[in-house]
Amino acid sequence: MRIITTIKEMKAISREAIHTGKSIGFVPTMGYLHDGHLTLANKAKQENDIVIMSIFVNPLQFGPNEDFASYPRDRKRDEQLAESVGVDYVFYPTVEEMYPRSMEIEIKVKSRVNVLCGRNRIGHFDGVATVLIKLFSIVQPTNAYFGLKDAQQVAVVDGLIADLNLPVQLNAVETVREEDGLAKSSRNVYLTEVERGQAKELYQSLLYGKKLIEQGERNPDAVISKMKDYLIERINGSIEYIELYSYPELATINECHGKIIIALAVKFSQARLIDNIILYV
Amino acid sequence: MRIITTIKEMKAISREAIHTGKSIGFVPTMGYLHDGHLTLANKAKQENDIVIMSIFVNPLQFGPNEDFASYPRDRKRDEQLAESVGVDYVFYPTVEEMYPRSMEIEIKVKSRVNVLCGRNRIGHFDGVATVLIKLFSIVQPTNAYFGLKDAQQVAVVDGLIADLNLPVQLNAVETVREEDGLAKSSRNVYLTEVERGQAKELYQSLLYGKKLIEQGERNPDAVISKMKDYLIERINGSIEYIELYSYPELATINECHGKIIIALAVKFSQARLIDNIILYV
Repeated sequence: MRIITTIKEMKAISREAIHTGKSIGFVPTMGYLHDGHLTLANKAKQENDIVIMSIFVNPLQFGPNEDFASYPRDRKRDEQLAESVGVDYVFYPTVEEMYPRSMEIEIKVKSRVNVLCGRNRIGHFDGVATVLIKLFSIVQPTNAYFGLKDAQQVAVVDGLIADLNLPVQLNAVETVREEDGLAKSSRNVYLTEVERGQAKELYQSLLYGKKLIEQGERNPDAVISKMKDYLIERINGSIEYIELYSYPELATINECHGKIIIALAVKFSQARLIDNIILYV
Repeated sequence: MRIITTIKEMKAISREAIHTGKSIGFVPTMGYLHDGHLTLANKAKQENDIVIMSIFVNPLQFGPNEDFASYPRDRKRDEQLAESVGVDYVFYPTVEEMYPRSMEIEIKVKSRVNVLCGRNRIGHFDGVATVLIKLFSIVQPTNAYFGLKDAQQVAVVDGLIADLNLPVQLNAVETVREEDGLAKSSRNVYLTEVERGQAKELYQSLLYGKKLIEQGERNPDAVISKMKDYLIERINGSIEYIELYSYPELATINECHGKIIIALAVKFSQARLIDNIILYV
């Protein structure tokens, strides 16, 4: 595995790979790797000749009151983990390498952003879109891998690729779960023992919502309301949102129909957890 | 020469070329081809394995009061001219193919736009940047060719490629001129005989400005002022602007130093002409 720190070198490697007909699987990350990232890298490894993982904590996607400076970083551990799943190149640029001057081009995402977690993160997806256009241009991947745990991000990337005709295939990878169904997250360690016992109910409530729809319920508000009742009975955490939209458009729907997402966020004492389920009605 | 109308087919052709190590020269146009376009295509032909020309009148770069609907189109003639200079593929998409839905991603160009012709064309370069990101994604050119006649567009494309790390080499091609120095333009036919005689003075005034600087004048205002005097004495057309900036940043400078551009626009009775000169001080 090689560590690449300059755009110039990364571009040269990608160009050489492409010109010799090799496929490139790309896993963009902000580092501090966990099982979710490794699942993406594993999938990239199975499906491509070369796997490139970027590790870049992108300042543009952090709000002024967010934790850019304190975002966890552990380069050594990340490198070992990346190597353990067969990543060929880690692209590890500095902020100065990626943003040598203030950007003259501004990228704004106008749809799919003012719902779910995006509602409280103004400009977040503009920063995500900007860095992804840049990373896709540098890495020139055949396939890019994103986890469905952040289904809104996947939706935004889907819109970005479609609107700009970016020559990359989006691969949305199923959320990895613990045995009891809890979505894996580095934040799960912040749960108390009692909360950890309850946290499995988040996914259970999603399955319950899915079952309601499969049994004929078509009213989104009714599904959400019953899911809320279900959760309130079973957890101490506070429900930040439970929302239901078309997917990947993330448009409000009056009736459950087509491809839809049910997504939720719950705040426990020390951890905010998100989860979602996507289904076809 | 083949005419390609769908993004899907164009992408497949480009991908195949790239995977077999072929270089792609790209000439984006809005059609109604003239000598300037053909010079670009000729250069692309010399320097690449494959030449792709796009012909697309891009609605996004026209203001509400501009001439999108009446912009001249002549597909048959364009095809003949493109073929005559060895273009391999003409990419000829419809508006619906390029913009199947209203864009969810908005591209804004924040620098280099509020000067020269851009000052009166709010949003024009946002539309140019948007369509170029799309076209570059579809065609995946090794080299893209733009004429320096529109030096502001070249400057904006330079900023776009740098900011987004687009994997394409920008090739800025010298303005093609008539024997007396008048920059070639399809609008020259709208000049009266008297005006045509005077029009050579536009380039002469640029050479005069250059000479002043080479002789030691470092004050941009003094250069511009003397050029104005020069032109007023010699032409009936009205001077819309004569401006001097650093290039390609198009930043105001207090002293002529480094790479600079002198650019002008003059209105004759039926034709508005632009021209520029770029020099190193």
